[in-house]
Amino acid sequence: MLGHPDPTLLLTPELRTVMQEVLSSSQAYQGLQYGPEQGTQNLLTFLAERISREQGISIEPANLMLVAGSTHAVDMLTRLFAAPGGVVLVEAPSYADALHIFRDHRVELHSVPMDDDGLRPDALEEQLLHLQTGGTPASMLYTVPNFHNPTGRTLSTERRLQIIELARRYSFLIVEDDVYHDLFFEETVPPGFYALAQGEGVASIGSFSKTLAPGFRLGWLLASREIVQRCIDCGTSQMGGGANPFAAQIVAEYCRRGHWESHLARLRSVYRMRRDTALSALGQQMPPDVTWTRPAGGFFLWLTLPGQVLARNVKRLAQRQGVEIADGTGFFVNPSDGQHNLRLAYSYAAPDELARGIQILARAIEQVKMGAED
Amino acid sequence: MLGHPDPTLLLTPELRTVMQEVLSSSQAYQGLQYGPEQGTQNLLTFLAERISREQGISIEPANLMLVAGSTHAVDMLTRLFAAPGGVVLVEAPSYADALHIFRDHRVELHSVPMDDDGLRPDALEEQLLHLQTGGTPASMLYTVPNFHNPTGRTLSTERRLQIIELARRYSFLIVEDDVYHDLFFEETVPPGFYALAQGEGVASIGSFSKTLAPGFRLGWLLASREIVQRCIDCGTSQMGGGANPFAAQIVAEYCRRGHWESHLARLRSVYRMRRDTALSALGQQMPPDVTWTRPAGGFFLWLTLPGQVLARNVKRLAQRQGVEIADGTGFFVNPSDGQHNLRLAYSYAAPDELARGIQILARAIEQVKMGAED
Repeated sequence: MLGHPDPTLLLTPELRTVMQEVLSSSQAYQGLQYGPEQGTQNLLTFLAERISREQGISIEPANLMLVAGSTHAVDMLTRLFAAPGGVVLVEAPSYADALHIFRDHRVELHSVPMDDDGLRPDALEEQLLHLQTGGTPASMLYTVPNFHNPTGRTLSTERRLQIIELARRYSFLIVEDDVYHDLFFEETVPPGFYALAQGEGVASIGSFSKTLAPGFRLGWLLASREIVQRCIDCGTSQMGGGANPFAAQIVAEYCRRGHWESHLARLRSVYRMRRDTALSALGQQMPPDVTWTRPAGGFFLWLTLPGQVLARNVKRLAQRQGVEIADGTGFFVNPSDGQHNLRLAYSYAAPDELARGIQILARAIEQVKMGAED
Repeated sequence: MLGHPDPTLLLTPELRTVMQEVLSSSQAYQGLQYGPEQGTQNLLTFLAERISREQGISIEPANLMLVAGSTHAVDMLTRLFAAPGGVVLVEAPSYADALHIFRDHRVELHSVPMDDDGLRPDALEEQLLHLQTGGTPASMLYTVPNFHNPTGRTLSTERRLQIIELARRYSFLIVEDDVYHDLFFEETVPPGFYALAQGEGVASIGSFSKTLAPGFRLGWLLASREIVQRCIDCGTSQMGGGANPFAAQIVAEYCRRGHWESHLARLRSVYRMRRDTALSALGQQMPPDVTWTRPAGGFFLWLTLPGQVLARNVKRLAQRQGVEIADGTGFFVNPSDGQHNLRLAYSYAAPDELARGIQILARAIEQVKMGAED
C-alpha cells in the first residue's frame, strides 16, 4: 500500500496524443532550451487563470513560479527563509520526507499536536510564545492542510484564520503543502491559506505529481510577488533556469486542451472508491480497539493501535505477506512518538488488493496483540 | 554572446526520432512514474561503461547518481557536505551562479588565485593553513578544472595531483564541476580528479545540458559509493525520487543508440570553429593593451582590459548595440575584483555574428578608453 498515485492511470490516450503532438511542434524545440527562471510561460498563465477562477481570488503570473515538484519548493523555501539555524514548526505527525529535508538543512524542528480538525492553534500559540521567550522565534510553519500526509485530516477554515493571525503576530512564513488539493471526495476543500491571508505571508505549493505524473517533476509555488521574486532570483534558479522546460511544454499543452480537468474528475472518483473500500474493509476486519481517520480526500488514512501493540511489529508481519505499510514513527520529530500508528495508503493498490491487504493487516494486528498479551 | 549551447544544434533528426519512439514504447510509461532515487538504471549503466572506458578506470553504477543538471549536484553537495557555516574554497574567478548557490547556503566563501595553468596550489596551501590556524578549516573546494567558466583555462595534471595531496592533508572534499569535459578542441583533457584520486574524496559533476539539451535537466554525479549513498539517502532524493525520470528515458535511449558520441564530435567541431573565429577577430580588432585567454575547449574566454577601462562601462556601451557580454565582477567572491575583465562566450552566436560582436566590443573598449583618458 504505497503512497504513490495509481500507476494504471498514468499513460492515458489523451496524454499520449499530447506528447506526440508536442514533439512534432515548435514546443519541443522550446522545451529543449534553458527556460525562463520563473518557468514556462504557457503553464504559468494557465495556472494563474485556473487558481483565480477556482479560489475566487485574483492571481497574476507574477504570483507563481514553476518548481520541479513539491520537493524543489520545500527545499528552496527552507534554504531561503529558514536555514541555517532557523526554527521550523511542523504538525505532529508530519510528512516524513519533508522532515528529512528540514533535518538536512540543520534547522531546529518543533512539532505542534493535531486533532481531528488538524493542527491545534492553541498548542501552536503556546509553542510560539515559548520559542519567542527563549530567543529563538519560529521562521516557518510547514503544514499539509488538506487531506494531510500521513493522517488524511483536513484543517478547518476557522483554524486556518487563527493560524494566519498567529503568523502575523509572531512573523513566521506559512508554507502550505497543498499537493492533494484537487483530490477531494466530498464537496470541495476549505479556502487555502494563500486566499485567506490575501496573499501575504504564505507560500503555497501545488504539484502535478499526484494528479498527472510524478515523472514529469513539475509543480508550482503560489506566493506574494516578493516571495516569488526572491525564489526566481536565488542561485539554483539562476544556474538551472526554469523547472523542467521539456516536461512543462507537454503539461502546458495537456492543460490547455482541458484534459487535466477531466482527468481530475476521474481520479477523484477512482480514489473515492478506494477510500470507501478501505473504510468498509477496516470496519469489517479490524479489532474493536483499533481506530482510524476518515479522510475527505487524498491518499492516506491513519490507524491508531492499542497501547500494547507496536506498529513496527505489525509492519514486519504484514510485510512478510506482501503488504507494505508505513509505521508511524517516521512521521514525528520525536521518533518515539507514533509507535502505535500506521499510515495506510489506498492510492496505489486496486480495490480487491486493498481489501485483501487490510484483511492481512487486521490479522497481523491480532497476532501481535496476542503475542503482547502473552 | 550568451553562455548557452548553440540553439540550432538542439533538435537533431536523431533526437526527434528517439523521442517519438520512446513515446510509443513502454519507456514512456516507466518515465511517468517516480524513479529510483539513484536515477534511471539504463542511463546509469551507460554512463558507468562510458566513463570507465574513456577514463581507463573501473566505475560501477554504485559510483553514480543522476542529478537534475549540475545545479542540483552543486546545491545538494553544499547542503550535505558544507552547510551550515562551513567553509567553501573557490577559484578567483569562479562560476557566478555557483557562488550564488554557496551564498544562499550562507557558507563562508574564500577564493584562491589562478594563473594560466589554473588554480595555484601554492596559494591554496597558504589559504588552507590560514583557515586551519583560525579554527575554520575548509569543507570543500569547488573547481571547474576543464575549460573553466569564466576563463576557459584548464588545470594542469601536475597541479591536480598537488591539490589531491592537499585535500588528503587538510581533509576537504574536491567538487569537480566538469560539465565542459567532452567539448575539447585539441586532443583530449587531462585525467579527472576522480580518476587521479582513485575515487576517494572527490565528487565529480557531469551534465547533458551543454552537450545535448539544457531543457532535459539531466546530469550525473560521480563519487565514492559512500558519497553517492549519502546523496541517495538525503531528503530531496527520498521525497522527489530520481532525477527527471521522463527525460532520463529519452536520454538513455539516445545514448544507447550511439547518437550522443556522434553529436559530441559535431559539437566539438562547431565550437572549435567558433573559438577560432573569436580568437582571430580578437587578434584583428582589439587594442594592443587588451589581453585574453586561449581556451582548449568549452564555451568561454576571458578578456583583461587596461587598468583605466571599467568593464561595466564597456558592457553598457556594447549592450546598446545588441552585444551581450558578462562583466567580470560577478565571478569573484570580492566583487571589487574583476572590474577590468569581461567573459566572452563564443558558444551561442553564429560565427559571423561573433565576429561582428567582437568588432562592436573592440570599438566600445576604445570609446571607454578615450573617455577615461579625458
